[in-house]
Amino acid sequence: MAIQTQSPDFRREIPDGDSHERDVCATCGFVNYVNPKIVTGSIVRHDGKIMLCRRAIEPRIGFWTLPAGFMEVGETTEQAAMREAREEANAAIVIDRLLAVYTIPRIAQVQIMYLAHLAEPSFSPGPESLEVMMVGWDEIPWDEIAFPSVTWALEQYRTIEGVAEFAPFSNPAP
Amino acid sequence: MAIQTQSPDFRREIPDGDSHERDVCATCGFVNYVNPKIVTGSIVRHDGKIMLCRRAIEPRIGFWTLPAGFMEVGETTEQAAMREAREEANAAIVIDRLLAVYTIPRIAQVQIMYLAHLAEPSFSPGPESLEVMMVGWDEIPWDEIAFPSVTWALEQYRTIEGVAEFAPFSNPAP
Repeated sequence: MAIQTQSPDFRREIPDGDSHERDVCATCGFVNYVNPKIVTGSIVRHDGKIMLCRRAIEPRIGFWTLPAGFMEVGETTEQAAMREAREEANAAIVIDRLLAVYTIPRIAQVQIMYLAHLAEPSFSPGPESLEVMMVGWDEIPWDEIAFPSVTWALEQYRTIEGVAEFAPFSNPAP
Repeated sequence: MAIQTQSPDFRREIPDGDSHERDVCATCGFVNYVNPKIVTGSIVRHDGKIMLCRRAIEPRIGFWTLPAGFMEVGETTEQAAMREAREEANAAIVIDRLLAVYTIPRIAQVQIMYLAHLAEPSFSPGPESLEVMMVGWDEIPWDEIAFPSVTWALEQYRTIEGVAEFAPFSNPAP
């Protein structure tokens, strides 16, 4: 780690050839193009149950979520979803198909959610999870879900469980 | 525009609490989190034909593409696709459903492609287009398509044209 003695000094400007205001650092000239970030995740199925992970980190520590996280450069969306299941639940998964693409404009996130299944019946908490469990519909702790989009994905999945062909979902109507 | 007299002096480091190396500016301490960027676009249909735009800008100036471009902060993926059709083809479109999610890892892009139709039969080239046309399958200039993913979207769409329910596509097998 370098010792960082300064912070960027951003000003709002429209860079040459651009049509939007961006943060430009008055110290070093860097243009910080902020684009929406991609989260990928999956509903992981096994024996009619669904994987949930209890978060060991903020935000929403202690609440239940699907294995999901920020996509990194150099991987596909499917590989990113598989990596997240491996990191958060020590689970090898197979991606089955796309369930939903959500946008959360307030935090500039696009969430790409897949249906998947366990490649082998083995899982355990990774460093970002306190617990991992497989639950049936009647066992989902709806009051302890970490994020609204986890609820959306679970509820939308329930409407097409067992259906082979369906259009992927977007944000539910408010 | 500010006059920018310096450039960022990035070094590769793992910031505190992170698991990946990032570019950190030695001058100002800024951490440049590079995430994949999202392109949204659409196959816009009208009267059995498909909209193509001839690019007025680099890369691939003079070649044909679908109305598509980088998603901005503050919009949904569907709104971004609608804005691109408005900007590139002065076209008001209605999003029908998701066609495909492609990843281009080499350039760290995720492309979210919709099926759409013209809200009204009116279009013309925007500032980033030289020409806009509606074409039938036999009229597509396959040798003058700007990007491989445009070809993927057109070919995959052709396999499900008229089908109500289908799973969205991903990158075709190499």
